[in-house]
Amino acid sequence: MPTPSGHTSAIRASKVKGTSVYNTAGESIGTVEDIVLNKTSNDIMFAVLGFGGFLGIGEKYHPVPWSLLDYDEDKGGYVVPLTKEVLKAAPAYDMDDLTKHDGQIRDTSYDYYKVERDWS
Amino acid sequence: MPTPSGHTSAIRASKVKGTSVYNTAGESIGTVEDIVLNKTSNDIMFAVLGFGGFLGIGEKYHPVPWSLLDYDEDKGGYVVPLTKEVLKAAPAYDMDDLTKHDGQIRDTSYDYYKVERDWS
Repeated sequence: MPTPSGHTSAIRASKVKGTSVYNTAGESIGTVEDIVLNKTSNDIMFAVLGFGGFLGIGEKYHPVPWSLLDYDEDKGGYVVPLTKEVLKAAPAYDMDDLTKHDGQIRDTSYDYYKVERDWS
Repeated sequence: MPTPSGHTSAIRASKVKGTSVYNTAGESIGTVEDIVLNKTSNDIMFAVLGFGGFLGIGEKYHPVPWSLLDYDEDKGGYVVPLTKEVLKAAPAYDMDDLTKHDGQIRDTSYDYYKVERDWS
């Protein structure tokens, strides 16, 4: 059911793309660049975050478990519970490589962020 | 692992959006307009298909279980195993309403297309 503020659990992928991302210190760290889906199951594989400006690491893209993104209405963006140190060392890829290796990039991401795997 | 043709199970949502959709008779029936995600779990709720031109039913959008979309390389689009009769009577909504009713629209879609629910 919708929450008292009218929000529900459903969101369109095209609304997610382009949304700002902050860390828990309130710093703007980048943008949701895309969502990677599993063609052969009903699973979201991961969100793709771009941290370019924040960390000065160029055009790389970061696969981050969807469950780590928490929408903050006041900020108008997603908050991820990740420190600068964690982000700096995070797995990063070229955009086109994110979908070339089947589940391997998802697995690397879940391992790095220590998120429990919930797919079958 | 990637298939022999180099394809994997991962695809970006922004690549799915705008892809043509055909029925099993080979007729072009519309386009993938968006994907609706579950904010509170790792599930894809449904694909949003636009059938406007094909059925002459205006600007309505159809929630269709993701598992019904099967990519056909030769066609360069998705094939759904649905007859014209099934499509004509399919649940249809305004785009903005698709995310307003939490899981109800997903449930209506899965019931209509008789797709087994695989979320918890």
